[in-house]
Amino acid sequence: MNRQVKNFKRIGVFTSGGDAPGMNAAIRAVVRTAIHYGAEAYGIMRGYDGMIKGDIIQLTSKDVSGIIQRGGTILQSARSEEFKTIEGRQKAYQNLQKFQIDSLIAIGGDGTFTGATFLNKEYGIPIIGVPGTIDNDLFGSDTTIGYDTCMNTVVEAVDKIRDTAGSHNRMFFIEVMGRDAGFIALNTGIATGAENILIPETITDIDDLIISLKESKRIGKSSAIIIVAEGDDLGGAYEVAAKVKELDSSYSTRVSVLGHIQRGGSPSVADRVLASRLGFEAVEALYLGYDKVMTGMINGRITYTPLEKAIKHNNDIDKELLRMSRILST
Amino acid sequence: MNRQVKNFKRIGVFTSGGDAPGMNAAIRAVVRTAIHYGAEAYGIMRGYDGMIKGDIIQLTSKDVSGIIQRGGTILQSARSEEFKTIEGRQKAYQNLQKFQIDSLIAIGGDGTFTGATFLNKEYGIPIIGVPGTIDNDLFGSDTTIGYDTCMNTVVEAVDKIRDTAGSHNRMFFIEVMGRDAGFIALNTGIATGAENILIPETITDIDDLIISLKESKRIGKSSAIIIVAEGDDLGGAYEVAAKVKELDSSYSTRVSVLGHIQRGGSPSVADRVLASRLGFEAVEALYLGYDKVMTGMINGRITYTPLEKAIKHNNDIDKELLRMSRILST
Amino acid sequence: MNRQVKNFKRIGVFTSGGDAPGMNAAIRAVVRTAIHYGAEAYGIMRGYDGMIKGDIIQLTSKDVSGIIQRGGTILQSARSEEFKTIEGRQKAYQNLQKFQIDSLIAIGGDGTFTGATFLNKEYGIPIIGVPGTIDNDLFGSDTTIGYDTCMNTVVEAVDKIRDTAGSHNRMFFIEVMGRDAGFIALNTGIATGAENILIPETITDIDDLIISLKESKRIGKSSAIIIVAEGDDLGGAYEVAAKVKELDSSYSTRVSVLGHIQRGGSPSVADRVLASRLGFEAVEALYLGYDKVMTGMINGRITYTPLEKAIKHNNDIDKELLRMSRILST
Amino acid sequence: MNRQVKNFKRIGVFTSGGDAPGMNAAIRAVVRTAIHYGAEAYGIMRGYDGMIKGDIIQLTSKDVSGIIQRGGTILQSARSEEFKTIEGRQKAYQNLQKFQIDSLIAIGGDGTFTGATFLNKEYGIPIIGVPGTIDNDLFGSDTTIGYDTCMNTVVEAVDKIRDTAGSHNRMFFIEVMGRDAGFIALNTGIATGAENILIPETITDIDDLIISLKESKRIGKSSAIIIVAEGDDLGGAYEVAAKVKELDSSYSTRVSVLGHIQRGGSPSVADRVLASRLGFEAVEALYLGYDKVMTGMINGRITYTPLEKAIKHNNDIDKELLRMSRILST
Repeated sequence: MNRQVKNFKRIGVFTSGGDAPGMNAAIRAVVRTAIHYGAEAYGIMRGYDGMIKGDIIQLTSKDVSGIIQRGGTILQSARSEEFKTIEGRQKAYQNLQKFQIDSLIAIGGDGTFTGATFLNKEYGIPIIGVPGTIDNDLFGSDTTIGYDTCMNTVVEAVDKIRDTAGSHNRMFFIEVMGRDAGFIALNTGIATGAENILIPETITDIDDLIISLKESKRIGKSSAIIIVAEGDDLGGAYEVAAKVKELDSSYSTRVSVLGHIQRGGSPSVADRVLASRLGFEAVEALYLGYDKVMTGMINGRITYTPLEKAIKHNNDIDKELLRMSRILST
Repeated sequence: MNRQVKNFKRIGVFTSGGDAPGMNAAIRAVVRTAIHYGAEAYGIMRGYDGMIKGDIIQLTSKDVSGIIQRGGTILQSARSEEFKTIEGRQKAYQNLQKFQIDSLIAIGGDGTFTGATFLNKEYGIPIIGVPGTIDNDLFGSDTTIGYDTCMNTVVEAVDKIRDTAGSHNRMFFIEVMGRDAGFIALNTGIATGAENILIPETITDIDDLIISLKESKRIGKSSAIIIVAEGDDLGGAYEVAAKVKELDSSYSTRVSVLGHIQRGGSPSVADRVLASRLGFEAVEALYLGYDKVMTGMINGRITYTPLEKAIKHNNDIDKELLRMSRILST
Repeated sequence: MNRQVKNFKRIGVFTSGGDAPGMNAAIRAVVRTAIHYGAEAYGIMRGYDGMIKGDIIQLTSKDVSGIIQRGGTILQSARSEEFKTIEGRQKAYQNLQKFQIDSLIAIGGDGTFTGATFLNKEYGIPIIGVPGTIDNDLFGSDTTIGYDTCMNTVVEAVDKIRDTAGSHNRMFFIEVMGRDAGFIALNTGIATGAENILIPETITDIDDLIISLKESKRIGKSSAIIIVAEGDDLGGAYEVAAKVKELDSSYSTRVSVLGHIQRGGSPSVADRVLASRLGFEAVEALYLGYDKVMTGMINGRITYTPLEKAIKHNNDIDKELLRMSRILST
Repeated sequence: MNRQVKNFKRIGVFTSGGDAPGMNAAIRAVVRTAIHYGAEAYGIMRGYDGMIKGDIIQLTSKDVSGIIQRGGTILQSARSEEFKTIEGRQKAYQNLQKFQIDSLIAIGGDGTFTGATFLNKEYGIPIIGVPGTIDNDLFGSDTTIGYDTCMNTVVEAVDKIRDTAGSHNRMFFIEVMGRDAGFIALNTGIATGAENILIPETITDIDDLIISLKESKRIGKSSAIIIVAEGDDLGGAYEVAAKVKELDSSYSTRVSVLGHIQRGGSPSVADRVLASRLGFEAVEALYLGYDKVMTGMINGRITYTPLEKAIKHNNDIDKELLRMSRILST
């Protein structure tokens, strides 16, 4: 690739969409790398909402001190309906001009990058994406920032519930995040030795589920954990539990929806390192002349994937692991 | 008190009711203290259910090795409708006779001790209670086994949710355990700096709540955490959130029901020490000739409270702390 | 007590001595309570060092937002040799006058309160103390801020080491904090089921120790944990291990000095609630006309103890618990 | 590869060398996969030591229930000098014959696999290796079982120390595991925002270190964390701290050796999933006719590397990350 080294003076950074642990580590990396290369860093508050409202502040190296270990995002995040309009994006761009921001780094997921491509198309401002979402549902990076922490939070919670399940001989249906993708459910299911794992990528057969639960009972298991991705085709954990109950009322079932705790918490080592590296590389990518790409990590190496490609595809899930999981939990 | 030193040869121990972190530490203490004093220890599985079914096993010192740090209860727990009948209790007592069990230590809460008093009244078998319940709703001990761990679990979860609340400017209604007692809600509310705390012991005025939320907004707070005890008179977190929404639709609200994670997990230091001491003292109490009492810790000292008194009363909640909490979260 | 209600306009707050988890929660409580009562709050950086150097800043309610869950102290802490001189204290007082600070709240331990009494004696400025130290070595409060968190940190670490000890059949000597007081060692020893606990309050007999280790081996235990308070009369963990090795070389021993991790970390629920209450009550105490006292919590009630008394005495340790611990770990 | 499907009836499994979190998850996977394929599983206690002594037990599916979340290894681990002799290995093989064990799965690191190759060479018994070591110093797998958990333990500890470092304006030298490899130091250094990272793979220049510490001070940083791999060429944390002190006495330094806590603890999601997959694949590999290979995960795919190759090489460390780390911590 014959890339021209570019020069940027004011790099804007923002987080958008659902917050994810590690976003702060990414912000820190962007800010300090920008400053290292002689640029100024500007934080845009609440994503596109703050861009439209001109809620933009300069960030010094000290401003991002002591945030690498904190969950959430110091730049906050919000939805913006206005940004979906031409007028909204015009206001946003005018604010960027007002602050003389000449390049952007967008930390987030699908929606974030869609917005970014519009802005880039209409006003030509260079944009690099950084994958920050707990769902791991982007193409162009083996994992996304927040995914590892989220899974560890889920597993800690399920370990606790297992204490109770085992003490009471109960069957627990536990709903975890994942509207379109079963990554969280599959891996946390393996890690907790779940008796069943229901994910959106496969058709869940309720009869099969009941047969396997009966088999589990037959071999002497008196408690069970079933991990249900929120986007499973049978429905969420409440619906699945109701269907099991309907077809076989012999189970004492409980439902737990893990909910919002999955987004928070101090990021894991993997997420801190990933966020640091991708934030760092995002700034490097700008200077190397990249545009409209997402930085990612594939097979241990930094990669650049066009934003449009990152949005449209998902990583494949290894369905073979469902079979393994069944064998290991028996 | 002029107590006669008694001699017991086979002490039965069981856990009953909702499981609580620290129950295993209490079992370990009972077993090893019994053995130390020359008795044998017998574990009765699943509380009164196992007593009726004769599911009883001898426990050696080694059997309780490595359990002090584990949540749940190795003896399991269950409800038993049959034990509420005279016939059920007769079967239970026959099994105790069969195993030559001459005294009992019951670890649990209200329901556990109610059952114990029936058995004691009908068959005269000496029984000592140990307060094991996360709800802290027993009289005769400043705190109950599991309460401290439960609160730490709640606070860790709320800290995580706070990351997201702060990142998105949202209001979260978080439901915690406490059907009759607001101890968990009150203390975790203080510990997380919750903007509001709703407990069963006070009448929750929805208008007051909305006024305080507006005041919170006025002084610049853009996110809020409201801790709701499940037994609040206004209802659980979903109901309260709906009522707020109904009266003032300007809030972006979210609800999180923490649920079963509150029961599990490795016990905290306070719970391990409390459980160890109360389990130890329960056996000592038997030998000292106590009967139908619950061991507890009041003001740092071991106390004995008649089981009937322990059941009927609750510790008082210090409502003045609600006022303090309001001042500190402003 | 016939106390006159006083009026204060500018309350200074500082932390001094070793930092302890919960200090930030206490600072938050002091600042917000002061503001609630119409006063201004001033933070004095690095304890007496910042007082001498005039490193003093106003603290608003917002400045203490989001710190309740953080370890360390935002006001920092340092030693000050200069404050031990008359000239140093004169400088310090001149700075307080310059900032029109008319009352002080000192968060710390022995050294902190000693300094406070000098200042109070020489210049008459009202001072309330808040007990913040992980060592729990103050009179006038059942527990001190940081003590509960510290013990939980120790127990988490020892649980991890137990994994390895059990896997390798090793004997571990683990050194925990406590130069003068064995509270941390005793309670964490009970909570981890330590085979031996060595504390400064008792004379450690090396022969007894070896006999008990042999007995432990004889009954089939292949690994052991010995908790050593740093101030034990036999020496720290390295010295004790060496002496055991010298007298009986048949053990495969390892030493772990837990060190500085014991001071940090997000405070536990107990510490957050204690710190919130004591910080709140310290300000109330000022207005009620108290002076030269430390706020404390004894038997669940707020108490005021003269600073000089708080310094000179220690809470008693319950040596009977050592006997119990020995029985439970056998 | 044209592999012949083999048939095995009794698969022996053992752990050897330093224990690592996730070893239990691997044991569980081996046992249940073996049983799934119609074989029996035998656990060999304490590695080669138990093999020589005939300390071998059958493991059922239930025996490995509830261990996936536990640190350490239920099969224990030990060194065996005797196994390094021909006679020792002969005894070991005789015991394998006695129990009719026809194949082995060895979970461990360098030393474990070296022993395995000897046994394989001398007696032809098929052996598959599973990489279990916190140090990540094996060739043939991007990461080893235990490495991710270990790093998260280190980072939690350093986060705590950072609380104190920040509160006291101190410089901390923190020693982490890694005799030959700097993977733990490098990644935990990045994840904690360490001001310096010293690893065995690079020559540590003390003058450079002091210059960088001075630079750090100059730009206003008042505390610092320096992560030192135990195998750094300058020495461990104590030695490095002494050298810094010697050349520039203006620093208030503290040393913390994290030590044995790094080996223990409940395994992270990444380690549980990796261990489950590698244990599963190890059994599959046996049936597929593989021999003398280590199962590993490279770029998300299962791989087989000859044991001798796995031992002799190390994964390369990306030294460029040291430069990034320096930029991000400034």
